Amino acid sequence: MSKLLAVGTVAFDAIETPFGKTDKILGGSGTFVGLAASQFDVQTGIVSVVGEDFPESYLTMMNAKGINTDGIEVIKGGKTFFWSGKYHNDMNSRDTLITELNVLENFEPVVPDNFKDADIVMLGNLHPLVQASVLEQMSKRPKLVVLDTMNFWMDISLNELHDVLKKVDVVTINDEEARQLSGEYSLVNAAKKIHKMGPKYVVIKKGEHGALLFNEGNMFFAPALPLAEVFDPTGAGDTFAGGFCGYLTKTKDISFENMKNAIIYGSNLASFCVEKFGTERMQELTQEEVSNRLQAFKELTQFDIELS
Amino acid sequence: MSKLLAVGTVAFDAIETPFGKTDKILGGSGTFVGLAASQFDVQTGIVSVVGEDFPESYLTMMNAKGINTDGIEVIKGGKTFFWSGKYHNDMNSRDTLITELNVLENFEPVVPDNFKDADIVMLGNLHPLVQASVLEQMSKRPKLVVLDTMNFWMDISLNELHDVLKKVDVVTINDEEARQLSGEYSLVNAAKKIHKMGPKYVVIKKGEHGALLFNEGNMFFAPALPLAEVFDPTGAGDTFAGGFCGYLTKTKDISFENMKNAIIYGSNLASFCVEKFGTERMQELTQEEVSNRLQAFKELTQFDIELS
Repeated sequence: MSKLLAVGTVAFDAIETPFGKTDKILGGSGTFVGLAASQFDVQTGIVSVVGEDFPESYLTMMNAKGINTDGIEVIKGGKTFFWSGKYHNDMNSRDTLITELNVLENFEPVVPDNFKDADIVMLGNLHPLVQASVLEQMSKRPKLVVLDTMNFWMDISLNELHDVLKKVDVVTINDEEARQLSGEYSLVNAAKKIHKMGPKYVVIKKGEHGALLFNEGNMFFAPALPLAEVFDPTGAGDTFAGGFCGYLTKTKDISFENMKNAIIYGSNLASFCVEKFGTERMQELTQEEVSNRLQAFKELTQFDIELS
Repeated sequence: MSKLLAVGTVAFDAIETPFGKTDKILGGSGTFVGLAASQFDVQTGIVSVVGEDFPESYLTMMNAKGINTDGIEVIKGGKTFFWSGKYHNDMNSRDTLITELNVLENFEPVVPDNFKDADIVMLGNLHPLVQASVLEQMSKRPKLVVLDTMNFWMDISLNELHDVLKKVDVVTINDEEARQLSGEYSLVNAAKKIHKMGPKYVVIKKGEHGALLFNEGNMFFAPALPLAEVFDPTGAGDTFAGGFCGYLTKTKDISFENMKNAIIYGSNLASFCVEKFGTERMQELTQEEVSNRLQAFKELTQFDIELS
């Protein structure tokens, strides 16, 4: 069975949307990536850090899904990373109410021995030096390294971000961040500039407007599934990335053609993620539901024009 | 040869974008619809009105493209409708600088006799009473009636708009206007409500984010082609509608499956429209260019996942 290693946060989220609000619930980029990847027949290991306040039951739930949590360090006396946010009525913008880094502040990722030969590595949205440190611990060059980042790291650690970008194959980034990183408004031109920074593949996430995959001249687009109701967008981007990596890990095919399928899978899983608060929908999701919705994606996008 | 009748404006535009500015050039919804439809082997007639200041050469150009201009009334001593606008740097928003209705103010459309039996009628973005008057002049119910509208008519003539909506098959509308008309934020729910107002088919235009086609439970999405540079977005929505109607008129097939192809053709033609100022790109466009770009649309959207 192929191995996927994901480094990211495992956290508490408190979320408010027009549909309601939650207390502290399970969240974090590593959690969402892991849950999405658990839809595929792969070995997924998460590298992260939590505090002593993190419920054992969450780890048990992940293990039951086949997610290896040996790389999630528990800091005695420490408190788990906590984020709280409130979404606006359009669900596309949000205010961060609370960010308590806690144990994340001094996070030094340790890759478990049995994941040092992982086939695919997903470097979740963390400090570029933390991302680089994970790569350095690998015993062999992974077949594919995927990196997610955000504007925060461009603002405070741009040089370190450029250093780690040189070492990765795929970068996933949202549209505004692609514009900031490249200085180009057009996403086509932004992707060209980001290619020159290192990554052969650039995935630009546009939220409800879908995602674009660029590979030096080639281009593919996956829409987000239009939904009657988006309940909570938290984790959708990480679920997308987890579906992308999980599918590539399972199929062992990192060609551009297969990456098309991978971003469709990512969009598919993300469309479930937003249907309930936090990780709830991803925890209960069945393979049959995923297959049925894949059919909906086909109907949404596939056409058959005869070229005359 | 099947017939398409389009009512819309034939106008002067003066446009400013980050790439430059123009003097008064040819514009108007009827013009863009006609030029797009002229890519297909159909008889297209435009119903509109211009002033004595409108250059004969523009009409000659349209005729050379096979567009019938008998329905374009020339008002002696009148001035042609004039619009001037300035696009912001993102090209997605614009300010209207000048709107001179001129001869459009008292426009009473007259459908030429040989277009009273048109197969498809496109009611361009005009007062709902003007749109209704065109329908009343038809000698038989067209196979398909497509209506475009905007928030302006919702603000000042909502009742008349609802009356004409009951008589059409397809409405094309942008996302914000769909929300305004329906009172629903989700486009899926907006389309459901608009179905209940009359149109069996709802096309929601999202500009650079593509277009959605809804048909009572069915849904299809066509992306806009990501471009390195958008030079001038003026007329892209009308070109989209003209491509949609032109393709349906030519293929004589108004099934949902064929409408998928029609909105891909619409997106295809719109992607050319924005490459130069005004109608310039549409005037020089060749069928070979259109075919090649259709291939690009396929590569952009088509995937092949085996469902396991």
